[in-house]
Amino acid sequence: MTNYVIVGGDAAGMSAAMEIVRADETAHVTTLERGNIYSYGQCGLPYVLDGRIASTDRVIARTPDTFREKYGIDARVGHEVMRLDRARKEVSGRTERGETFTVPYDRLLIATGAEPVRPNWPGADLAGIQSFKTIPDTKALLRAMQTSETITIIGGGYIGLEVAEALTEAGKRVRLIQRGPRVAAMFSERLTEVIEARARENGIELLTNESVESFEGDARVECVVTNRGSYATDHVIVAIGVRPATQWAEEAGLATLPNGAIRTDRSMQTSDPSIYAAGDCAAHFHRVSETDQYVPLGTTANKQGRVAGRAMAGRHAKFRGILGTSIMKFFDVTVAKTGLNEADGKRERIACAKKEWTGPHIAGYYPGNERLTTILYYDERTRRLLGGEWVGGAGVDKRVDVVATAIHFGASIDELLDLDLSYAPPFNGVWDPIQQVARRMQP
Amino acid sequence: MTNYVIVGGDAAGMSAAMEIVRADETAHVTTLERGNIYSYGQCGLPYVLDGRIASTDRVIARTPDTFREKYGIDARVGHEVMRLDRARKEVSGRTERGETFTVPYDRLLIATGAEPVRPNWPGADLAGIQSFKTIPDTKALLRAMQTSETITIIGGGYIGLEVAEALTEAGKRVRLIQRGPRVAAMFSERLTEVIEARARENGIELLTNESVESFEGDARVECVVTNRGSYATDHVIVAIGVRPATQWAEEAGLATLPNGAIRTDRSMQTSDPSIYAAGDCAAHFHRVSETDQYVPLGTTANKQGRVAGRAMAGRHAKFRGILGTSIMKFFDVTVAKTGLNEADGKRERIACAKKEWTGPHIAGYYPGNERLTTILYYDERTRRLLGGEWVGGAGVDKRVDVVATAIHFGASIDELLDLDLSYAPPFNGVWDPIQQVARRMQP
Repeated sequence: MTNYVIVGGDAAGMSAAMEIVRADETAHVTTLERGNIYSYGQCGLPYVLDGRIASTDRVIARTPDTFREKYGIDARVGHEVMRLDRARKEVSGRTERGETFTVPYDRLLIATGAEPVRPNWPGADLAGIQSFKTIPDTKALLRAMQTSETITIIGGGYIGLEVAEALTEAGKRVRLIQRGPRVAAMFSERLTEVIEARARENGIELLTNESVESFEGDARVECVVTNRGSYATDHVIVAIGVRPATQWAEEAGLATLPNGAIRTDRSMQTSDPSIYAAGDCAAHFHRVSETDQYVPLGTTANKQGRVAGRAMAGRHAKFRGILGTSIMKFFDVTVAKTGLNEADGKRERIACAKKEWTGPHIAGYYPGNERLTTILYYDERTRRLLGGEWVGGAGVDKRVDVVATAIHFGASIDELLDLDLSYAPPFNGVWDPIQQVARRMQP
Repeated sequence: MTNYVIVGGDAAGMSAAMEIVRADETAHVTTLERGNIYSYGQCGLPYVLDGRIASTDRVIARTPDTFREKYGIDARVGHEVMRLDRARKEVSGRTERGETFTVPYDRLLIATGAEPVRPNWPGADLAGIQSFKTIPDTKALLRAMQTSETITIIGGGYIGLEVAEALTEAGKRVRLIQRGPRVAAMFSERLTEVIEARARENGIELLTNESVESFEGDARVECVVTNRGSYATDHVIVAIGVRPATQWAEEAGLATLPNGAIRTDRSMQTSDPSIYAAGDCAAHFHRVSETDQYVPLGTTANKQGRVAGRAMAGRHAKFRGILGTSIMKFFDVTVAKTGLNEADGKRERIACAKKEWTGPHIAGYYPGNERLTTILYYDERTRRLLGGEWVGGAGVDKRVDVVATAIHFGASIDELLDLDLSYAPPFNGVWDPIQQVARRMQP
């Protein structure tokens, strides 16, 4: 009987747990979750703010009881791991009741996820300043919304933008402060200009190139002070990024990236053969750049957890890598990206060519067609397709997924023209927008 | 200077013409079109019937004058080719004014398309019986709709179904007579059952396993007589299929499939090295079954025309094959297919396994999610992905295109799990429906 211990009860951890139970009938699986909630859809939380999703309960997939009763997993809540002893093969920590615990393992999975970066600006511990990542965070913000009119968001990444949209839809006055020159910097400027325009059109006070220096207030935050000014506010969301929750893993000497993300091989095994890592606490192999990166996303956590679970149970399983695929709805616009854009290509020292096309997302004569801009990036030397970016309304998600699939299989830009994609006027033109771009790249 | 002659001024012919003009600066290109309209979107015509598209003019992409003035193509209208003399390298025929013409060629492209199969049932030449393929057909039906209440459609393929939907939406009483046991027989029964239910729910009188024997009427059709009954009608659409318009090509001895579709190699060259064929008059190499088939579709015509034009102009170009990808909207339901389904697999003697999954097309907790059924087919021996079918509302077109792309690159069913598809709750669940199916196919 193998004793499997999994630290973290969310996407990566529970995907692994389920695979272990399926693959190894004699498995004894213990999962240690610091909080009280297992396996929920973090990405749905912003939509609870404006009522699109009725309550945080809706995003919970399975309860600890389900894991216990249906799958025989010893799913513990309120168990915070604080130390890893690799020589003794055990993890130890403290429960929310203050008791200590020590659990031995044959195989350990670290699936502790990520935690919000917390600023050390003066006043950061005032009431009314919070991060936005968990169900308790969401509930705290819902409560604060009852008495707050003006809410300041610090950071213009995914979380900052999604919360900004949701709070605007909920009728709040929203200010978004971004230290760098533009929001959503994983996308090219072509896309972020559209996002920024939409933010302003929808009444968001968008401040770029502005860094927070301190918060002021009497017990509760009343004012955000930046290098350029001072802004009255009722509440603050800090969304300046996340980092892997790997303090005890690092202390135990596991190999990590500079930011603390745990390095693994393709089967998610760490530098210690008895220990695996997956999800937002692990590094993510990028299939196009062929480097370890850190791109914490729920889809990747599920995939890596699945691979880790199978590999831990002795099966063949390899993680084939991410493409950095991402998509975001922001008011009536959708932006998406997969693979490398021009800036990413430059970083990887690839001679990256690009071509852009804007046209209807379905047949131009069919009602409801919307403008869609497609940008494709390819290696000038080999003609290998490197990536794509989109901005538009409907139909963005289809094109990013088709191009992600093509890139996964090493397609050249020319091969896009060969694809037999579905056609009828309500769904597409005879040449898909990605083929319209590829046609224009023909010599 | 090379003298290029293209017979047929629609998708395949004009795609080729444009490629020739781009690739060969000294080209002399003559296009001979039997009718008066060049290059239009046939697939949009059903939607003119119910006003979704305002007029047939909307589906015309370019006029003959554009081809003449902008691209220097000698684009002739009203020129019907009736004979091919391969020894003399010339085509001849008659204009709509009754004049004869003979045009010599260095390289010839046959892009004559398909023509509706015309029945020889008694009474088939009565007024009020028509096919539905061209802009003149559409205008004739629009006129007939002004005085017709009950319209009978014979044939339950794409055209029959799309016209049935459009006429129903336009307020007509519609009867659809299908000789075989089910409509849209290219799809599996799982899908056609849904289509048939939707037809009946929307008031279409659907008669299956019923063959037309004759039409009755006094000058104008009044009644359709079948093997089972006799039905009063004001107008009749015959949509029992199309066949390649290749009579003179066959007479000239070009190799064809049994149905008359012209055989070509991968560069669209026929059995005569000076002659190429593309589009609905040609055979279509199927990438999964690796056989020549006949699946006339606008997307394929564009692709084959493009390849033919480049190859005729002396460039490297190969047609990589179809997957038989098809999609149809029918009232509020969408059905789609790519690759082989179970019946196709049996025909190709492949041990075809399948798995089905039904669930929300986006995150189940996000508003607006709709039920989507995905069926994937794979080779039991090699685990190669063979095909997929879908039935649902929104999101069908995305999944069929992703799977078509994966099949194009020879994916196994297992590799679907590796795809880094875009995820955010308004666009997908963390595992795409195709991955939900693939997960359930894991050993």
